[in-house]
Formats: sequence, structure tokens, C-alpha cells
Amino acid sequence: MLKIVVLRWGHRHRDQRLTTHVALTSRALGASGFILSDILDKKISDTVEKVKDCWGGDFCFEMGTPWKRAVKDWKAQGGVTVHLTAYGENIHTSDVLDRIRETGKPVLVLVGSQKVPPGFFSEAVSDFNVAVGNQPHSECASLAIFLDRFFEGKPLGDDFCNAKRKIVPQARGKHVVDV
Amino acid sequence: MLKIVVLRWGHRHRDQRLTTHVALTSRALGASGFILSDILDKKISDTVEKVKDCWGGDFCFEMGTPWKRAVKDWKAQGGVTVHLTAYGENIHTSDVLDRIRETGKPVLVLVGSQKVPPGFFSEAVSDFNVAVGNQPHSECASLAIFLDRFFEGKPLGDDFCNAKRKIVPQARGKHVVDV
Repeated sequence: MLKIVVLRWGHRHRDQRLTTHVALTSRALGASGFILSDILDKKISDTVEKVKDCWGGDFCFEMGTPWKRAVKDWKAQGGVTVHLTAYGENIHTSDVLDRIRETGKPVLVLVGSQKVPPGFFSEAVSDFNVAVGNQPHSECASLAIFLDRFFEGKPLGDDFCNAKRKIVPQARGKHVVDV
Repeated sequence: MLKIVVLRWGHRHRDQRLTTHVALTSRALGASGFILSDILDKKISDTVEKVKDCWGGDFCFEMGTPWKRAVKDWKAQGGVTVHLTAYGENIHTSDVLDRIRETGKPVLVLVGSQKVPPGFFSEAVSDFNVAVGNQPHSECASLAIFLDRFFEGKPLGDDFCNAKRKIVPQARGKHVVDV
């Protein structure tokens, strides 16, 4: 399976819960890791570590890395970059997802907030600009759909390694087992 | 196309940005409307109205309705209810989505926050409990994937009626036209 890492740009303190959701969505939907770029936010890293510790998986979390360096390093190591933006090529009506898959390269997904620097759209930063619909909505929703479509939903059925607890899906009520 | 309305339960002030994202995700992914249950939050309604005014669509927003009444009314009018929860039937590994579609009925999607009352899981409230993966992540991500799969992505390519502005998707930069 191709590797995907998510980079969250432009996190501000008021986005704390949203950024936490973006990180947990990355993990649950099959990304290998998450970079909270440029700043440190201990509350977010604590939450992600707590979820990993309990529910398992090999998810890497890092923060503080300058976004320009993360992008440069990713490309230097042979990866491609995908910027999620409402202005990009439509994931449903264009063939952009196929073209990304056809590169056969690991993908760094850039998830911004409302206003990203214009440079994000340039070839120097983003190999692909992808719109999960061309309507304003949510970076968390866009990322979720991008990952679900990219991996064809497989991570939603996966078992996570090294889990302490596991949910047993059922039609009514809650069923959690210790592993 | 079957009608879906989203009901957001348990919104607190600290969730304001998240709830706004859930509402805008509902609109962009094809839901007909959104109910912010039990409370009023003018900032959220203002944001949704501003987005509608500029980008179009027939999206209905209401708030303050008690969730019990909304559920009761929905069922009385022949609709089914779907509660999104990490404990429910897995959307990817079970046939729950087909069974929902086969009812042929309009769907009220209940989107909670971390702790919903146990009653949410009962037949009196939820006809289906659906897990977008059995890992903890995000109600915004879960809703996005549920809607994307339910409507098979079609709304992502739709034009919205009565829009003042429209994004023209492209590989680089931003292109917005006045309609």
C-alpha cells in the first residue's frame, strides 16, 4: 500500500479541536503519519498519543517542523505532494486521483486552513492541487474523503497492531474488548 | 435522489468551529438540511447563511429544535434515522449502507459528540447505528465519508442553484467567476 503522510499547515490555538480531528482522521483512514508544521501544541500530541496507546497502530506524529523543510525533504526523498483546496482539480469529475496513484510515489497531503500562502499552489510546493468538491466546507471532511477514495476504504476495515482495546462493531450498544 | 438531513447533537460553545465544519460539510456533500438541536448559535447560522448566499444551493438550516422532537417528527413522517458512532455496524465491512438505501426512505443522520446518551443506540431513536471505521476519529470525517458513499460522490460534481460565485476547478491557482 502506498504511504501517505498528512501535513497540517496554519494551525492556530482556536483550531485545536479541529486539528486534533484532522490528526485522528489521518490515523483512522490509513495515513502513516501526521506533521503539525511550524508550531508545537502539547494538547494535540497528548491526545494523539493517548489514542495510539489505547487503540494501536504505527502512526507517527511530529510537530514543529517548518513546512518548507518538510515539503523539500519529502520531494528530495522521491515523494509527491498533494494540496487539498476547493480551487483544485475536482476529485470526482477529473482523473486527478488516478494520476496521483499512477506516480507510484508516497504522498504528502497538505491540509491548510482558509488562507494559505499563494505559493502553496505552485509546482515548487504542490505537485497536485485537489478539490474535494469546489464548494467551501472543511479540511477535515476533505482529507477524510481523499483518504477514503485513495485507499478505497480498506483502512476502515483494518485491525490496528498493538492495540490494548478494540471495538467490536454491532447494531446496538457498545462492545469493547481488551486485546 | 433520496433526501438526507443532518442533526447535530451536543454542540457546546467550544465546538463552534467544528459544528460549522459539520454544517458546511453537510451542504457540500449533498444533504438537504441541517438541524443544530437544542441550542441556538448565531455565529454558526450566520456563517452557513453567508456561504449559501454566495455559493448557492437549497440548503435548509434550523436550530434550537429539541432533538427528541426532531427524531419523533422525522419518524412520524416516514423517515429513517442513522446514528454515526464508532460502535456501530462498519460501513465498509458490513452491508449496512445497502440496507439503509433499500428502505427507500429519507434519512436523518444523527451526528453526536464524544458522549451521547445511551438512548441514542436504541431502536426508539436510531434505526441504524453506523461506524465509519471502528476507531475514534471525527464526526466531521465520519459524516463526510457517509455522505460521499451514500450519494456515490455525485454532489461533489454538482452545480449549486442560485449561486453568486462559482469556482472553476484548475490545476494551479484560483479561478472564481461571478454567475
